[in-house]
Amino acid sequence: MELRNGVIPPICTPLTPELEVDTRSLARLVEHLLAAGVDGVFALGSTGEMAFLTDAQREQVLRTVVDAVAGQVPVLAGAIDTTTPRVREHVRAAERTGCSGVVATAPFYARTHPAEIEHHFRLLAESTELPLYAYDIPVSVHSKLSSELLLRLAAEGVLAGVKDSSGDDAGLRGLLVGRKARGLESFSVLTGSELTVDTNMRMGADGSVPGLGNVDPDAYVRLNRLCADGEWDRAKAEQERLIELFALTAVGDPNRIGASSSALGAFKAALHLRGVIDCPVTAPPQLPLTADEVDGVKERLVAAGLL
Amino acid sequence: MELRNGVIPPICTPLTPELEVDTRSLARLVEHLLAAGVDGVFALGSTGEMAFLTDAQREQVLRTVVDAVAGQVPVLAGAIDTTTPRVREHVRAAERTGCSGVVATAPFYARTHPAEIEHHFRLLAESTELPLYAYDIPVSVHSKLSSELLLRLAAEGVLAGVKDSSGDDAGLRGLLVGRKARGLESFSVLTGSELTVDTNMRMGADGSVPGLGNVDPDAYVRLNRLCADGEWDRAKAEQERLIELFALTAVGDPNRIGASSSALGAFKAALHLRGVIDCPVTAPPQLPLTADEVDGVKERLVAAGLL
Amino acid sequence: MELRNGVIPPICTPLTPELEVDTRSLARLVEHLLAAGVDGVFALGSTGEMAFLTDAQREQVLRTVVDAVAGQVPVLAGAIDTTTPRVREHVRAAERTGCSGVVATAPFYARTHPAEIEHHFRLLAESTELPLYAYDIPVSVHSKLSSELLLRLAAEGVLAGVKDSSGDDAGLRGLLVGRKARGLESFSVLTGSELTVDTNMRMGADGSVPGLGNVDPDAYVRLNRLCADGEWDRAKAEQERLIELFALTAVGDPNRIGASSSALGAFKAALHLRGVIDCPVTAPPQLPLTADEVDGVKERLVAAGLL
Amino acid sequence: MELRNGVIPPICTPLTPELEVDTRSLARLVEHLLAAGVDGVFALGSTGEMAFLTDAQREQVLRTVVDAVAGQVPVLAGAIDTTTPRVREHVRAAERTGCSGVVATAPFYARTHPAEIEHHFRLLAESTELPLYAYDIPVSVHSKLSSELLLRLAAEGVLAGVKDSSGDDAGLRGLLVGRKARGLESFSVLTGSELTVDTNMRMGADGSVPGLGNVDPDAYVRLNRLCADGEWDRAKAEQERLIELFALTAVGDPNRIGASSSALGAFKAALHLRGVIDCPVTAPPQLPLTADEVDGVKERLVAAGLL
Repeated sequence: MELRNGVIPPICTPLTPELEVDTRSLARLVEHLLAAGVDGVFALGSTGEMAFLTDAQREQVLRTVVDAVAGQVPVLAGAIDTTTPRVREHVRAAERTGCSGVVATAPFYARTHPAEIEHHFRLLAESTELPLYAYDIPVSVHSKLSSELLLRLAAEGVLAGVKDSSGDDAGLRGLLVGRKARGLESFSVLTGSELTVDTNMRMGADGSVPGLGNVDPDAYVRLNRLCADGEWDRAKAEQERLIELFALTAVGDPNRIGASSSALGAFKAALHLRGVIDCPVTAPPQLPLTADEVDGVKERLVAAGLL
Repeated sequence: MELRNGVIPPICTPLTPELEVDTRSLARLVEHLLAAGVDGVFALGSTGEMAFLTDAQREQVLRTVVDAVAGQVPVLAGAIDTTTPRVREHVRAAERTGCSGVVATAPFYARTHPAEIEHHFRLLAESTELPLYAYDIPVSVHSKLSSELLLRLAAEGVLAGVKDSSGDDAGLRGLLVGRKARGLESFSVLTGSELTVDTNMRMGADGSVPGLGNVDPDAYVRLNRLCADGEWDRAKAEQERLIELFALTAVGDPNRIGASSSALGAFKAALHLRGVIDCPVTAPPQLPLTADEVDGVKERLVAAGLL
Repeated sequence: MELRNGVIPPICTPLTPELEVDTRSLARLVEHLLAAGVDGVFALGSTGEMAFLTDAQREQVLRTVVDAVAGQVPVLAGAIDTTTPRVREHVRAAERTGCSGVVATAPFYARTHPAEIEHHFRLLAESTELPLYAYDIPVSVHSKLSSELLLRLAAEGVLAGVKDSSGDDAGLRGLLVGRKARGLESFSVLTGSELTVDTNMRMGADGSVPGLGNVDPDAYVRLNRLCADGEWDRAKAEQERLIELFALTAVGDPNRIGASSSALGAFKAALHLRGVIDCPVTAPPQLPLTADEVDGVKERLVAAGLL
Repeated sequence: MELRNGVIPPICTPLTPELEVDTRSLARLVEHLLAAGVDGVFALGSTGEMAFLTDAQREQVLRTVVDAVAGQVPVLAGAIDTTTPRVREHVRAAERTGCSGVVATAPFYARTHPAEIEHHFRLLAESTELPLYAYDIPVSVHSKLSSELLLRLAAEGVLAGVKDSSGDDAGLRGLLVGRKARGLESFSVLTGSELTVDTNMRMGADGSVPGLGNVDPDAYVRLNRLCADGEWDRAKAEQERLIELFALTAVGDPNRIGASSSALGAFKAALHLRGVIDCPVTAPPQLPLTADEVDGVKERLVAAGLL
């Protein structure tokens, strides 16, 4: 099952108070997304706390999501680790669990030359029949995938698409213009920024992978449809509403916890407050939101009409 | 078995041409180090290509090293992964295989607040009886462990020591002065820089974890003894000879492969040329040295009297 | 004369072969821009090689531009230096030469706390009657101006606007949504990215400060008008044509000269080829484009119908 | 008058409450340094708040220092600005005021290729008869001068020396070993780190440029002599005492002011408390230390026996 466009939320991974994967909550979260009409689900992305889950937990997440999705939409699996041999293990798990594609970043921890990054993606593609998507996330892996590299690998059939979480819209634009110039439209370009979906789609992006889509998937589905229909002014209004909602990710005190802990904590608090998941806990060593901060999340949900 | 000082090389992981762990070469490398009189062995560090090994390979490395060392010196195990739950799995493997201590970095990939980094080390220490060493390596994990944090965790018994690969000698000096001021001398401070061992030991560092110590362990053992004996001028001469030898890590063309691939490739080429390991291959996606570059390694070994 | 929106190119500074300001070419360049219908001119920006000009040359640039513009549009002056006292000197020069506003970055070289950056802008605003625009350019000054800081200073009347060269479109979007929410529409938000003008204006940006606008000002004026008229599809086509043209900035070999030298060299080569300026030389220590690289610029101009 | 080694403090620039250069206090500070037996004075370095002074003030500083020094030791002048043409203006001022040498960083603000950085130093050397020293300070200029570049320029007589404020001791060591290997001992290598003077001199550095030397020049002169005499243990004790004293630079609350403002404010507070300068104010936009923070400085001075 191919996945070229639309809304593919990077699904959160609900945990139990004992810090195990809460498979029932996860299944409910899948239903929450499917009910909204998403076009796919991306499990084990950064928003899915992939970096905080053991291999056994990761595989449990994939099984649970694939079961719950039951073939209604494609399931992409993050196969994210430091280097090729370790990523290949996660690719195997994605194959075993019946996922539709895998998503891999550039290597991290070890510093890698661009030629080695390219080699990495080639080796991964050789090792699997599943479509391979590149995940461009410099904030985590500390290198940027160039448009040249992506389009070269697209032209050779190594990559099926890219999830662009670089925040570099000029770079994204260059990629999209280059894709058109080389007739590579089957290469899927998805934006990972929940704040610029409408403008990224105006540039030609095929869809979005919005973390905030866990909290309000209906809005992202609406936004995607408005963009597809060329209703740009209404799309803009929907996007701006979501930007206001996104402020919930900043409730955490930056003198106390990290920006990413604050965002993940807020997504889970929101899902808990909305009744989708049983427990809002995030994985260690992330510190939890305080009660006041959770109230801040609540206020934002109320303001957005989600509570 | 405690490990407070001396030379503890971060042992390379020899691979077969099929990219499996070459356990016979690894055992020979252990003997090569022990014969030189090292004070410990650090398996699964950055130099050990830990980031490029699957979990099964990592455990195989630990078993092989522990077996080959056969209790003659302590074996430290790198327990390096993105976050606490994943690091804990590696700590379990270190326990299972009978290692003497574990070495963990700050979390990476996910951005983590200093308070969360501290929480990470506390959780790890709670989860094991093994001594826990912090590994300060900002070039890989993109955060620096402050002296304050290290000394606080030292005072509480959370950390047994630190391997400082930050390259920040003023910071290291502050740590050492602070350690003395607070009477925390049992907290072990080891330098990871193979180029400043003598001056770092003059500052008060207890020992070194030199990657180049794979290639010339005798020299690092001599250097360590000269420092311990206060023979600083002879120590300086030995250190400078090693700095010249270290130039072998720069044989790789920086327009073609990364600095870290060049260094790891050169260490393995040198071990191969010296007859210690069977095959100099490094793990993917690292690109290999060219024949000319290997000749450059050879020249350096000859110049240093090692061939 | 206020300047809120439209196309305000950051004008290049033509030099003579002896590396003095070529005032005749500069005046011709002003006419070239005015003839295209630009809404203002920004002198002494990064594209104007401000960082490479002595104070006397900077003032000569301002005099020449103000004279040549002759009141037809506002002239903004870059007042860019390391800290407040030095920037104030440039503000004085802007006043002396009759500029319409000044543009200042966060302090650089010295590391400055956000509270000190805010203090910097307050002190500058107190020191002049001219409207003050913030210039957000982290790639040069290594700090980012937050939306909170900008909107606070906007609300207090300290800042008249911002030129956003951060390349952070999600941040820009947050600024624009925040501006609307607080009713601060008189605060002008101009994008410094020549590659995303249409999408930035869809987000609500008031105009653009495109370096490439030196080479093809007519296209940026057309693009601006199409955006203002809501002709988004035609705007997109115009923008994409400019993205193809922008490739001329990448003619320089990155193993030989820097990206910024390549871009400035290409802008000047293009202006020289188009007959606007007499000499394409850039200021030292920038290295010049090779003849082959200039041919690459020529090809791009021909392809764009500009030669 | 040549300057190859010894203690050359980067002299602070005392200001009046009206933020003008306090020439009388500056002359007293010169005397304070000369009385301690320093080997030279470095005016207009980072510690001299060069980045915060107008050109007129910078020249006033040079005149005052040269007058007060009255030929007793060499005076080095920081000629620090964004690029070659601007730096040349500062070199002219150094010549006019009778300084003994000039100190220049790599270009900043504009991103510059290493080949352009090298060109920068060549052009500067061609433009003056004064000895030219490179100032390696990546924290401010965001590029690092490689040993290769420095030694090449040393061999050609372009550079007379380097002030290494990179904090990269392994790099410094490589430079020193390379200098010896190429017989370039007349090229002066001075460390800018006040915390590692003894170990840097053990490596072969010729002297130091310690900001803290403003506060306690006697100690740095003693330390330098102990190193020259090979009294390494006593040198270490002196260095460690200075490391404790250096803690005064950290009195500023990092949630309120920057690290560099805190350090400069503390140096000036200490000089004021010791009766050397009339007013401890730092230049805008730096925020001042609070009364409590100044008390912290006082405590450190008392503990060090300086009050």
